[in-house]
Amino acid sequence: MAEKSSVTLHGMWASPFALRAKLALKIKGIEYEYIEEDLQNKSELLLQYNPVHKKVPVLVHNGLPITESLIIVEYIDEAWTEPPHLLPKDPYLKAKHRFWAAYLQQIAEILGKALITESKPSEDMMKKMDVAEELIKAELFHNGCPSFEDAKPGYLDIVLYSLLGSSDVAEEFFGFRPFNAERYPFLSSWINALKEVPEVQDVTPPKDKVIELLHAMRQSYLHTKA
Amino acid sequence: MAEKSSVTLHGMWASPFALRAKLALKIKGIEYEYIEEDLQNKSELLLQYNPVHKKVPVLVHNGLPITESLIIVEYIDEAWTEPPHLLPKDPYLKAKHRFWAAYLQQIAEILGKALITESKPSEDMMKKMDVAEELIKAELFHNGCPSFEDAKPGYLDIVLYSLLGSSDVAEEFFGFRPFNAERYPFLSSWINALKEVPEVQDVTPPKDKVIELLHAMRQSYLHTKA
Repeated sequence: MAEKSSVTLHGMWASPFALRAKLALKIKGIEYEYIEEDLQNKSELLLQYNPVHKKVPVLVHNGLPITESLIIVEYIDEAWTEPPHLLPKDPYLKAKHRFWAAYLQQIAEILGKALITESKPSEDMMKKMDVAEELIKAELFHNGCPSFEDAKPGYLDIVLYSLLGSSDVAEEFFGFRPFNAERYPFLSSWINALKEVPEVQDVTPPKDKVIELLHAMRQSYLHTKA
Repeated sequence: MAEKSSVTLHGMWASPFALRAKLALKIKGIEYEYIEEDLQNKSELLLQYNPVHKKVPVLVHNGLPITESLIIVEYIDEAWTEPPHLLPKDPYLKAKHRFWAAYLQQIAEILGKALITESKPSEDMMKKMDVAEELIKAELFHNGCPSFEDAKPGYLDIVLYSLLGSSDVAEEFFGFRPFNAERYPFLSSWINALKEVPEVQDVTPPKDKVIELLHAMRQSYLHTKA
């Protein structure tokens, strides 16, 4: 099935949500055609495939569109049954991975709102991150260090990296680090381990280009407000 | 596995999220012990099992806690592999069910906020519901009528019913109907079909008791504000 099927991904090079789909496809070793979308002028196909949200990413598999990044990642894991598996087979561990992915997503949404208004993350948000730092380490890593020497990244790694993998970009652009290695040594070492993985490096957009885009977006935002 | 395992659910009788877990267990025919939580005075066990959100429902299966209602429903479907299945086996259909469940959940959150401030749902929200009315019917029901004569309710039915199954309660308490059969004939007939299912009737709290609770909550809210 994996060999002969037609797989297309509609994405945008800097989108952290499209990155999730790209990374899942890479890790599973699935060949696909990539269509870069201009978000100011979306393609007819994108609007046809995702009439509800009109957003990237959209995965099109044998003509059938799948939307929403986390649903796409689960779909990829289920439609291509060969290993590596992105989610654990064990239902309890799977539930744990889904739980922490949803939790990290909630934190990142609060963080994203803070960054848009260019205010520092609140202490309340930092405390929510303390919970992730402490409990993910204990529950999923048995207090050990994350490593990808013997295993490929999976669903939860993809979610973490898409949300917090570019904190050095945020630091350079906003002038402060949304989270730091002193307070979050476990999460930081996890992200650093992911940065060494070839598939992760393949799909990560160049830092300079992202910063250039952020400057352009800020200018455009200030222009709209003026 | 289903026969010999220990299954406990921590819930609260009127919680629509606990209802999801109860309904999933009923439909799968899983015996369980039920622990009613007093949300003003939560049990030590609840706080120990769900230290992050401290909320019901929590499912405890052979000593392992699973939290968050949608994760619990997926867990139940995966840990008890016998039919009926709550999610379709086909990955594409599964992705569609997950997509629409998330969409309905988003609408219900907006609706919930409107109800808390006792304001009518906005036209924008009603339009979002139009999208669900039209597209779920076309994509998942081939424009036919929902029926549970030959099939048990599944994941998406559980989500829909938990969110919009008590609109008659809302009508009686708030004095207006959050959604009506004229504008949403498909969603209304779907919910009505679900109301005929014995497992659904088993887990639905009595309307009078829910309205009594809503009155008490309003009094307590007004008292806090005074």
